[in-house]
Parts: sequence; structure tokens; C-alpha cells
Amino acid sequence: ESNSVALVDSDDKLIAILTDIEIYKHPKEERIARTWGTTAPGLPYVEETIKNSGNWLIGGDLEVIELIKYNDGLDRFRLSPMDLRREFERRNADAVFAFQLRNPVHNGHALLMTDTRRRLLEMGYKNPILLLHPLGGYTKADDVPLSWRMKQHEKVLEDGVLDPETTVVSIFPSPMHYAGPTEVQWHAKARINAGANFYIVGRDPAGMGHPVEKRDLYDADHGKKVLSMAPGLERLNILPFRVAAYDKTQGKMAFFDPSRAQDFLFISGTKMRTLAKNKENPPAGFMCPGGWQVLVEYYDSLTPSEDGKIPEPVPA
Amino acid sequence: ESNSVALVDSDDKLIAILTDIEIYKHPKEERIARTWGTTAPGLPYVEETIKNSGNWLIGGDLEVIELIKYNDGLDRFRLSPMDLRREFERRNADAVFAFQLRNPVHNGHALLMTDTRRRLLEMGYKNPILLLHPLGGYTKADDVPLSWRMKQHEKVLEDGVLDPETTVVSIFPSPMHYAGPTEVQWHAKARINAGANFYIVGRDPAGMGHPVEKRDLYDADHGKKVLSMAPGLERLNILPFRVAAYDKTQGKMAFFDPSRAQDFLFISGTKMRTLAKNKENPPAGFMCPGGWQVLVEYYDSLTPSEDGKIPEPVPA
Repeated sequence: ESNSVALVDSDDKLIAILTDIEIYKHPKEERIARTWGTTAPGLPYVEETIKNSGNWLIGGDLEVIELIKYNDGLDRFRLSPMDLRREFERRNADAVFAFQLRNPVHNGHALLMTDTRRRLLEMGYKNPILLLHPLGGYTKADDVPLSWRMKQHEKVLEDGVLDPETTVVSIFPSPMHYAGPTEVQWHAKARINAGANFYIVGRDPAGMGHPVEKRDLYDADHGKKVLSMAPGLERLNILPFRVAAYDKTQGKMAFFDPSRAQDFLFISGTKMRTLAKNKENPPAGFMCPGGWQVLVEYYDSLTPSEDGKIPEPVPA
Repeated sequence: ESNSVALVDSDDKLIAILTDIEIYKHPKEERIARTWGTTAPGLPYVEETIKNSGNWLIGGDLEVIELIKYNDGLDRFRLSPMDLRREFERRNADAVFAFQLRNPVHNGHALLMTDTRRRLLEMGYKNPILLLHPLGGYTKADDVPLSWRMKQHEKVLEDGVLDPETTVVSIFPSPMHYAGPTEVQWHAKARINAGANFYIVGRDPAGMGHPVEKRDLYDADHGKKVLSMAPGLERLNILPFRVAAYDKTQGKMAFFDPSRAQDFLFISGTKMRTLAKNKENPPAGFMCPGGWQVLVEYYDSLTPSEDGKIPEPVPA
């Protein structure tokens, strides 16, 4: 009687071996309630994945025989935690700060990352390295697909908004749960494993609107609070960041100053998508022109269907 | 501008001072989902307390000026964590094992407690003390009220089922949440604070039926698993126990032996209540006669109303 299971790909090729297995009931309702803090219908990952999955789960120790290849032209960005640690060593990093994202990089994000580097240098680190770690798994239909985001990130580095010398771009192969304070712990722990010792966290990380009620699902401060209190995260330094917005007086993204709120413009993801869809330009200084061009091309690639409606975005 | 709040009783007498206060939204749905792993209607504590409470909460550091007295004849059993630690010291305990309960003590419970003491002596402890710690706050309407349970517990000690020399009986002043794996962590942590270093945990601790579906709300093993893995509980030794049942061949409660399952009788809480209500006796050896008599008196005290229905039990 064997207690291990071979995992094969669609061609029956051995990919991994699961040993010391355990088979257990899939408590869907409890899993959803404890992960999202709600069981309301319409949570993207729940509808996409959990509800359709089976009533039994299997777990165990996984021995991977062959690393997964996606063959989508992006595998060179899929560095394992061990690859990443080696890369940081090769670059002689004395601090690694991670930035989780699932959206195109605008100059507000860039400001946060360059300002974090400045603070780390001030703290006495000689060579802080940024891990720009875009999420590579499932995202909502209205998020920009991974391949287009990766093109956009490359442009941001090419245009010098971020410095390629001090930036490692790698894909974080996790699906997005939009589970706020629960998910942000996974996001942070996974980056510890990849060698990061600083983690940048903003307002309402991994948050979204309530699927049924007209409000945000999570308290915008809970993600940050949970990170500062969760056991197991002691090795990680949490860097909360100030909100960046478009400063009309300077014509660029800057940290929001509440004493002159009228000078600032908040450009939401929805607003950004609408501009790009309509081939309009955002205010100068919001995003580097090369990066913006990628977004315009992406929305251009979504051919309207016969009834004139824009179809759901699909991976490029 | 003050940042502290005086808490007064119904006669406006100062009871406590809350300092360094924080006022925050009461995220009821999220609290319920994360605590119970479901948002289905009909969870006793949720319906009783959470749904009726306000939309804002206040927290802070609490300085208690005067310990709460209930004046219900049971205050002598309400030992604070510090009182309990002193009592264990006075008795020269070298191990303290806690037993959480909200039901009358039958001989199956007693077997677990005396067997735990035996195991601790075998492990080399010289003077293990049992903390019999019945829950003293809100319980479901069909649970036996605290005052009757305390009478029953006293009988169990008088009848020698548990040894008064090695047992401390105290009321744990918490409301019952019936929140399974979440609540059992609170039950265990609170007992660490009271000086316990061993905690007896059974199947499905603090569990209940799903309020809507015909199944148990929790996996019966999850409470035990969570206790063994939860951060902050490292100082506590978890003692999982075997199930006790009525052994018909011996005429007493004994550890269930699956190899001769037909010899055992499981007497559920519902069965026990039905017997006591009907003034019938359980099998000899199920509970000491003095303790059983208390239960019969309790159900007797519930005078049927005019329409012949048994009213909801009220505290004696």
C-alpha cells in the first residue's frame, strides 16, 4: 500500500511526487468565510476556482521533478525563491525590498519605490535592491493581463523610471484572491522566502469592493495592522507608504499633502483604464510615455464584437 | 481633550477607567465570518449579542477599580487569573491541568480528569492539580444554567468522584461563542494566563451543529489541530483525550474500545436531558446519584406554563 502519488502533465509526463499524503474534506463555506471575511456571492476567485472545485482535497510533501514551464515567452521572469536569493547575492544586496503589484506601474508607484530606496540608503544600507514582483496567476477580468503588464514593466525600466541596476523583475506565480488582510500575509511571507527583508505595503492591500454591498470589503488599515502583528513575520520590516497622487502644481506624481488637497488629483485604476481605452492621454507625468503606449495597445487589441461591446480582456 | 473614559455601573458608581481609547467601526459580517467560519443565520451568540450591538466599538487599556460582583451566591467561585495562580502556589502544584466545560460532570468526564492526573504522575509530576473551570457567561437556552451546574459540580466533589484535595473549582466568566477552532484558542490561552500548563481537549471542542445545514459546523479534529499549531500556545501542553462511553459489560464509564463497540453506549447531552426531564435514571455508573439529583431538580423547577409547554430554562 503506497502513500505517495505521481503528478503528471497532460502528456502523462511525471512532474512531481506527492508523499505522506492526506485526503480531507474541502470545507468550502468555512474556507471562504475565514479567508475573505464574507460568504457573499460574487467574490472573483471564489466563483472562478473554489466553488467549481471538488469536495475533497489532497495534501502532502511535494517533490518537484521538473519545474513548470509556461512557454509563453515569460519563463525567464519566473525565478524561484532560490533563484531570487542567488540573484540578490550576485548583486551584493545588503537589503531587499519587495513591491507586490498586479497593475501597470505608474509614476506614483515608482515614487514609492525610489523613495523607499532613498530611505534605506539613509538608514545606512549600501546596496538596497528592489524586487518588483508582479503577480502572475489568476486576476479579475478587468485587470490588465500578465503579458501586457510585463511589457509595460519593461518599458518603465527602459525609460529609466526605475533603475535596472538596482531592480530585479520577477513573476510571483500566485493567483490573486482579493482577500485583503488574509492575503497580504501570504504576499509578505512568500517574499520573505524569496529573500526580501523589507516589504512595502499601502492602503487596503489586496482589497476590493464588497461583492454585494456598496462599500470596500476591508478596513483600509487592516492589512498593514495584520502584517505588523502576525506571528511568523518578525523577520520582515514592514514599510507602510504614504499615498501618492498627481500634483497639478508640479505636473508630476507626489506624496499627497492634505494641507493643499485641492492641488492633487487621484487617478483611480478605473479612470486610468477608461483613458487608455479611449486612447486619451493621462496628465503628463502620470506614467512614462512608453509604458502608457503599452496600455493603449492592449486596449486596442480588444476588438469590439459585432454588437459593439468591448469583450472581456483575454491574455495577450 | 481627554482620551480616557469612565465606566460606571447602573448606580453611576465608577467601576473602571478606559485609557488610550480607540473608536472603530464594528465590522459585523467580517467578525462573524472570521470567528465562526460561516455567516448562516441562527448562530446562538451572534443572534444574542453581535447582531444587536452597535455599529461602533471602543477599545483601550482597562484599569479596573472594583472587581465585578454578581451577588448571585457564586462570587466565591469567581477567582481571577491572579487568584488562581496564588491558589496553585498555596497547594504546591507542580503541574496544573485545565478542563473547560459547560455541562454537568458525568463519570466519563471524571474518568478523563482522573486519568490525566494518573498520566501526569507517571510523567514524574508529584502534585498535579486539576482546574475544573466551568464557563460562566452566556450559554444556549438548552444548556443547564450556571447556578445548577455549580450545584452539580459540588455534589460531584462531595460524592468523591473528583478529589477536592487536588481539584480547584472556579468559574470562567466568558460567554460561550460555540465557535469551535477559533474559540478553543481563547479557552486555552485564558487558562495559560490562569497558570495552567496542561489543557485537556476532546473531539469538536466548542463545536455545534451547522445552524442551517444538517451537519456539524466544524471538523471534529480541527480544534485539537489548531491548538497544536497556533502561535502563542507553545507554553501549553495539549492533552487530546480518548472518547469515554458507557461500558455495559462493566456497568461504568470507560474509554471506548472500537474492537468491542457493541458493548458501549453513547449517552448524548440530549439523551441525558431527556432522561432528567422525565425523572428517569441513567444507567447506574453514568453519573454520581447526588449529581443526577441536581439535574432532576433543575428540570423539575421549570414549571410548565398554562399551555403545558416547558418554558425556556432560566437561571435558578
